Amino acid sequence: MLEGSRRWRREGLSIGLVPTMGALHAGHLSLIAEARRENAIVVASVFVNPIQFAPGEDFERYPRDPARDAEQLSGAGIDAVYRPAVEVMYYPGASTRVHVAGISDRLEGAARPGHFDGVATVVSKLFTAVEPDRAYFGQKDAQQVAVVRRLARDLDFPVQIRVCPTVREADGLAMSSRNAYLDPQERAAAGSLSAALRLAADAYAAGERRPEQLRSALQARLEAEPLAQVEYAEVVDPETFTSPGSLAVVAIRIGTTRLIDNHDLSMRFPG
Amino acid sequence: MLEGSRRWRREGLSIGLVPTMGALHAGHLSLIAEARRENAIVVASVFVNPIQFAPGEDFERYPRDPARDAEQLSGAGIDAVYRPAVEVMYYPGASTRVHVAGISDRLEGAARPGHFDGVATVVSKLFTAVEPDRAYFGQKDAQQVAVVRRLARDLDFPVQIRVCPTVREADGLAMSSRNAYLDPQERAAAGSLSAALRLAADAYAAGERRPEQLRSALQARLEAEPLAQVEYAEVVDPETFTSPGSLAVVAIRIGTTRLIDNHDLSMRFPG
Repeated sequence: MLEGSRRWRREGLSIGLVPTMGALHAGHLSLIAEARRENAIVVASVFVNPIQFAPGEDFERYPRDPARDAEQLSGAGIDAVYRPAVEVMYYPGASTRVHVAGISDRLEGAARPGHFDGVATVVSKLFTAVEPDRAYFGQKDAQQVAVVRRLARDLDFPVQIRVCPTVREADGLAMSSRNAYLDPQERAAAGSLSAALRLAADAYAAGERRPEQLRSALQARLEAEPLAQVEYAEVVDPETFTSPGSLAVVAIRIGTTRLIDNHDLSMRFPG
Repeated sequence: MLEGSRRWRREGLSIGLVPTMGALHAGHLSLIAEARRENAIVVASVFVNPIQFAPGEDFERYPRDPARDAEQLSGAGIDAVYRPAVEVMYYPGASTRVHVAGISDRLEGAARPGHFDGVATVVSKLFTAVEPDRAYFGQKDAQQVAVVRRLARDLDFPVQIRVCPTVREADGLAMSSRNAYLDPQERAAAGSLSAALRLAADAYAAGERRPEQLRSALQARLEAEPLAQVEYAEVVDPETFTSPGSLAVVAIRIGTTRLIDNHDLSMRFPG
């Protein structure tokens, strides 16, 4: 992959990288479209990264559809796809991990031990393998964005981290490859995530600034959905993921499916 | 720094990096000479890396002589010196660490908690900041070499790790910036390191292969020096730093000074 990147660079072409785990949806396509606007060359990576799944999580059943991914990528005008095999990404004996202390241990990190070390390690490897000028991530995974921004800065990667808005279904549900796990009843219940965020944003717009009030509003709305088990509902700073702040972050479990969402309460909730 | 490297690369020039903590001696100059032979451009970095010193170690008193370093570097025909301030290398809030699991916890890593995380992190940052084709390290720090080789491979850094032989004083003492700490009596006692390695190499040459016999020979010779306090004396594999192997590694403390050395027992000890 690097040889191609260096040739493009020699030719003065800028390179945008869109890291994905495949199972592409409209959220990914919006990242690719933005990368297309800002770069001469767009590279997408497709890699279901085993080390960012904690034991017992959904690595094995994570949706994989290489043929459909390839079709979507070619339709989106990608210049190159980087799709390493697991043994190429992590050959036997590989033991190096990139750890972003602090933020990696909170919320998503606490719920998914080792998750952000897996993310930070694979993203670092993608940056060294592709040497992009810009890399594109979705706001949907807000804490991942904070981890990636921090590691890029801390390790001097000469890459600009670009973040694109969450793409939502008509009822507000954030696009996610994991939505495919939901049966119709669960799919309806998943609407509680965006409903809770909308409620908190409305409260914020009406002047509510007390962290505990905002947090309770999120929590109460999520708990009102009988199929949802609340993992967390917090209002945090978007860089450190500690309170206080104005980023509402929520995680629930519906059946065996874990879903997350977030919204900057100082902005109107879309739709 | 990166801008310069990318300009050189565009011009088709290869780049060699020699990372140092300053206090240059003949060992460093041999690395620079080798880098000079193999690359069009040679960059030296000078940075006393605070995070690779454990609390209570010699970070504050580590020898610093910028004027003499500059003179030696310019005499050696360096193309660029990368000498970041500590606040540039680690600005407030930086919290990312590169950890090479396994090897980082053994021997030097056990004696100096956090040392190899500090090394792995700063070397990763030097690689992203300079993007060298080759980087030069001394065999004197054998475990550091193993950590750096592993991290370069694991994180896909497109850099060749080149290792140069330990440069020794007439009596066999390995060149080290820390030798400056020794008073004349201690300096004489430091000869026990190379004496022990020579003894084990002679035993190996005479056919001794039993790990415990080789280890005891090292240990006994080091203990024969009344000023030396032995930290470890082992014979290990040079990649994993576990037994069995043929790399003899030793660490002693003389007064407040900690010294290390090593030798591949399958080779004749020099001198």
